[in-house]
Amino acid sequence: MKKFEEKTLQSTEIFKGKIISLQEDIVELPDGKTSKREIIKHPGAVAVLALTPDNKIVMVEQYRKALERSLVEIPAGKLEPGEKPYDTAMRELEEETGYSCQQLEHIISFYTSPGFADELVHLYLAKDIVKKEDALPADEDEFVELVELTLAEAEGYIREQRIHDAKTAYAVQYLMLDEARTR
Amino acid sequence: MKKFEEKTLQSTEIFKGKIISLQEDIVELPDGKTSKREIIKHPGAVAVLALTPDNKIVMVEQYRKALERSLVEIPAGKLEPGEKPYDTAMRELEEETGYSCQQLEHIISFYTSPGFADELVHLYLAKDIVKKEDALPADEDEFVELVELTLAEAEGYIREQRIHDAKTAYAVQYLMLDEARTR
Repeated sequence: MKKFEEKTLQSTEIFKGKIISLQEDIVELPDGKTSKREIIKHPGAVAVLALTPDNKIVMVEQYRKALERSLVEIPAGKLEPGEKPYDTAMRELEEETGYSCQQLEHIISFYTSPGFADELVHLYLAKDIVKKEDALPADEDEFVELVELTLAEAEGYIREQRIHDAKTAYAVQYLMLDEARTR
Repeated sequence: MKKFEEKTLQSTEIFKGKIISLQEDIVELPDGKTSKREIIKHPGAVAVLALTPDNKIVMVEQYRKALERSLVEIPAGKLEPGEKPYDTAMRELEEETGYSCQQLEHIISFYTSPGFADELVHLYLAKDIVKKEDALPADEDEFVELVELTLAEAEGYIREQRIHDAKTAYAVQYLMLDEARTR
């Protein structure tokens, strides 16, 4: 998986933040010329497609500063240092929604923006979720509101662009495929 | 769509590159406290799910410096200033694959990483593509190899993680759903 490899001639860290860092690499291209690559390093993240006993999809509405608007998304969050994606998914589900789950099933992992970022999102399926009375509290700077949608409602939210991100669109399509196959 | 709005108290541009820029915003949270947000600005991008007359999916293999490996992806590229997504999709399809198409159908648009970036990807469907003898040349610093896969092969590539990004995974699942519904 090294086809057309771009060799690093120089790598400069430009910014190191709470969540992301930015580096600029000077690379040697396969034809010997050089070019610059702007790269965001990200710790990776998880997302959880959680279904209630009456088959509603658990989502959260939250403000996304990068977009200057709120979105309805499946619960998600970034990996803490040393944390396994499975454990992050269990934690984020509980923190953001108050639901917990005995077991998660891995659906897929994908890079969100391979052109400039190394963020890898691990998507899990949570069935048989139960509401916890003593759920983990949300992060201090995170304000989210629980939204529970039927599949048809979620499809409507996508058309209205209230759901408007890749992981949630993928998760909704996953359920549409599941429904089409079991009909 | 302003629920839990975070008001900008201060915005500082840290980096302005060829493709992305980075800013750090200090925001006022709904509870009056302040926090920092690290934000990547991106011009937006397109991706094209293109099908050959014998129903193969047109993909390109290319090196992704952010991941230090190559990926097989559907053709994609970023918007040039003032360019409409539809036109970008027509151009990128031709530049990256040598195929052109009379008409594209919009499938969906989604934000790839709303937690830290404003990149919006517009996904189009291209049927009835034809190979052009005098296709537009690829970008100077872009090395890609054409790969044409059946749907079953694409599903295999996902399992092997040779296909490993959100837009391509979404596009393959879109075809799986289409197949399940027309059976």
